[in-house]
Amino acid sequence: MNAPHPEARLPLPPAFIEQMSARFGTRFTTSEGVRAHHGHDESHFPDAAPDAVVFPSSTEEVTAIVDACRAYGVPIVPYGAGSSLEGHILAIRGGITVDFSEMNKVLAIHGEDMYVVVQPGVTRKQLNAELHGSGLFFPIDPGADASLGGMAATRASGTNAVRYGTIRENILGLTAVLADGRAIRTGGRARKSSAGYDLTHLLIGSEGTLGLITELTVRLHPLPEAVSAAVCAFPDLAAAVNTVIQTIQLGVPVARIELVDTLTVQAINRYSKTTLREAPMLFFEFHGSPAGVDEQAQTVQEIAREHGGLDFDWASRPEDRSRLWAARHDVYFASINLRPGCRGITTDVCVPISKLAECVTGVRADIDATGLIAPIVGHVGDGNFHTVILVDPKDADEIERAEALNRRIVERALALGGTCTGEHGVGIGKQDFMLAEHGEAALDAMRLVKRALDPQDLLNPGKILPPPQQATPLV
Amino acid sequence: MNAPHPEARLPLPPAFIEQMSARFGTRFTTSEGVRAHHGHDESHFPDAAPDAVVFPSSTEEVTAIVDACRAYGVPIVPYGAGSSLEGHILAIRGGITVDFSEMNKVLAIHGEDMYVVVQPGVTRKQLNAELHGSGLFFPIDPGADASLGGMAATRASGTNAVRYGTIRENILGLTAVLADGRAIRTGGRARKSSAGYDLTHLLIGSEGTLGLITELTVRLHPLPEAVSAAVCAFPDLAAAVNTVIQTIQLGVPVARIELVDTLTVQAINRYSKTTLREAPMLFFEFHGSPAGVDEQAQTVQEIAREHGGLDFDWASRPEDRSRLWAARHDVYFASINLRPGCRGITTDVCVPISKLAECVTGVRADIDATGLIAPIVGHVGDGNFHTVILVDPKDADEIERAEALNRRIVERALALGGTCTGEHGVGIGKQDFMLAEHGEAALDAMRLVKRALDPQDLLNPGKILPPPQQATPLV
Repeated sequence: MNAPHPEARLPLPPAFIEQMSARFGTRFTTSEGVRAHHGHDESHFPDAAPDAVVFPSSTEEVTAIVDACRAYGVPIVPYGAGSSLEGHILAIRGGITVDFSEMNKVLAIHGEDMYVVVQPGVTRKQLNAELHGSGLFFPIDPGADASLGGMAATRASGTNAVRYGTIRENILGLTAVLADGRAIRTGGRARKSSAGYDLTHLLIGSEGTLGLITELTVRLHPLPEAVSAAVCAFPDLAAAVNTVIQTIQLGVPVARIELVDTLTVQAINRYSKTTLREAPMLFFEFHGSPAGVDEQAQTVQEIAREHGGLDFDWASRPEDRSRLWAARHDVYFASINLRPGCRGITTDVCVPISKLAECVTGVRADIDATGLIAPIVGHVGDGNFHTVILVDPKDADEIERAEALNRRIVERALALGGTCTGEHGVGIGKQDFMLAEHGEAALDAMRLVKRALDPQDLLNPGKILPPPQQATPLV
Repeated sequence: MNAPHPEARLPLPPAFIEQMSARFGTRFTTSEGVRAHHGHDESHFPDAAPDAVVFPSSTEEVTAIVDACRAYGVPIVPYGAGSSLEGHILAIRGGITVDFSEMNKVLAIHGEDMYVVVQPGVTRKQLNAELHGSGLFFPIDPGADASLGGMAATRASGTNAVRYGTIRENILGLTAVLADGRAIRTGGRARKSSAGYDLTHLLIGSEGTLGLITELTVRLHPLPEAVSAAVCAFPDLAAAVNTVIQTIQLGVPVARIELVDTLTVQAINRYSKTTLREAPMLFFEFHGSPAGVDEQAQTVQEIAREHGGLDFDWASRPEDRSRLWAARHDVYFASINLRPGCRGITTDVCVPISKLAECVTGVRADIDATGLIAPIVGHVGDGNFHTVILVDPKDADEIERAEALNRRIVERALALGGTCTGEHGVGIGKQDFMLAEHGEAALDAMRLVKRALDPQDLLNPGKILPPPQQATPLV
């Protein structure tokens, strides 16, 4: 997987290296080890190391980096925790990786207004650790311990989005350095505003192609007074999914409602040493007042029973809940562990909730028809689910079959009014589907915005937008 | 108020008129009456009639209009219900107004996925009437019976935003015709997506300057099982506002929490024939399960009591609730009615919730210092409140004093980390504050986006973005 990426790349100009070394000292490096470390993420794409890596400590330093890169035409790849799944941080055209790990401070906690100001390198677990004792928490929880800058850049979500929204609904404002080197501040501290174009949302999900995020103002939520969690096994996938659909349609404010299929339960039991019943299963969490939580749980139990669900297995103690959700968060690694030496190709479709049963059961049949190993797991309250297709990285034929399966799953989702990516982003992995999902006119509008804000194509070039003529239409 | 607006304008080319007449027949008109009707909104700005008005019936017809306007360099002003408050629909550079009132169909109700597809001329009351019996509703309720296209264009909200979000959180996708005449479809039917730039949110709040919205996919919400509403009087403004702050900080999911000051209560009593106690007052509404609603009401009553609030006066029957909220929605007209022949200059600041008491009491003092008549009313759960400054439209000195007061109020809000407009938008009325709120770099980024998507400056020219050199900095 270390073959050089086929796209054109130029070596770094010596004068650029000299200027960056003078400014950043040892925080700028061309060492092979550091470059190699920054050349791969959690995706299955070939490694693509940058020509150099720099570790800024402030917005002003990011401006200095962008100014130098603009002067010398050097591509810029932003890097958070390196946990992206679609090749976002691969330096496919070389250039410099801007690693935000030293910009990892929580700058201010405004408990009275329920927001926090953080640097982009702060990770979600770090943030919640620093919020300990404040009565507030940050609910967005992608599988990995991602950085907040990376989560904003990829429009991430996680298991709590069904109640608390995705990162998109939880960012009040950003500071970002644009390609011209200027830092802009978008949004504000107020809960809403109608003052001009929504640059905050334009940057969220732009994957570093429009600007480098250097500060985030992030909404927090009061810790719920009461929490309860349970798992429930179902006779088949459709029964589990129909329970989800009815729960959402009734407006029950569940905090989490996660699907795992039988294969995933087997993976979890093996990896996390749990003893869950090996059947399609829903993981629930309820937040609210004690009475509210009881009421929600009561309603959902009735719905589950109607669909043949077995009794709820409650995790009442906080440590049991933590164990349950840790097992859920480790599903990716548990899945990979099913087949030693494999890599995972993760799919990420999201469909309207009413199409979820049709989509999930169709995808399960698609997988079974290929003979590939691919557990299904999902944030089904949003209509979003993943398969992790386990492939032998040395088996080109198998990778090809896995990619064909991925394509088949996306086709299915798009035909049902869904999206090719619910929360992982486009990177290089989903570009082929952008035309089918958005149409040429909308894609051209995105290209116009990109060209306006980054005329030299310096910021994470080659990501999100397929070249105008090379986009592969779906059949 | 009928003085021509000073900006340059050219007459419509005869060939353009001929082409449009041939295509649209009587749905294209240059009649003075129709033009005049489209030349004013609910703001206090001088009327500015377009040179012609056209009433399209489809996205394809909007494309034809934009193509003709681009060929002849004719400015395009979109028009919904004409209820905007900042001069958004004034044809300050002449050109053609595109009136969407004939595109007023609810195209599809997807109850199982809780969204609806509508044309832009559908009004919020019409939509809720058509949803009757579906068990679902559309919560966003600006004061006027605005069109959904207009609400999206101005990023509107209303009294329910504290629980259900603003229009920004309630639009899944849009169809819009860009300046190049092409229709784009943004977003989708799924609840979330990470697939590329967020063109949906770029268009929301763009006030017709980036594209003409021709279709909207809008989220709906289940009608709450139980609803209760109450009013509560307080000894002073600060006590009322502090009740709000504590309610929000505790995370009580109130559906509505609205502030009216004493003067507003007097206006309501006079206009709506109510007998409310003439003191600062909060209007509450609680949505949820019967037990949930009781629990919320209990908590809020305790908070109110701690701040000296009198007993809750409950409106338990649906007709009493409707009367209460109709009175609240008529506050603008009730206020205008306090002074026959006057016009209202409406302010619209929004601040972080912890600064709300400081801001509201400061603004009340600012008003009192001027001697002007200006009731205060607000969606205080969001930190957003309005004053309606009642001015004699023939008294230039008074208008000047009112504008100075508006400026003072905005300065106060910006100094507290707030915004110049929480929900009304910029139009021509708030442009002078854009530099102070966003800074030159962010404003330039907005200008780059505008130029990229509308290089000829055809779409609602002269709105939102102040000219680069003419922006007046705040002191």
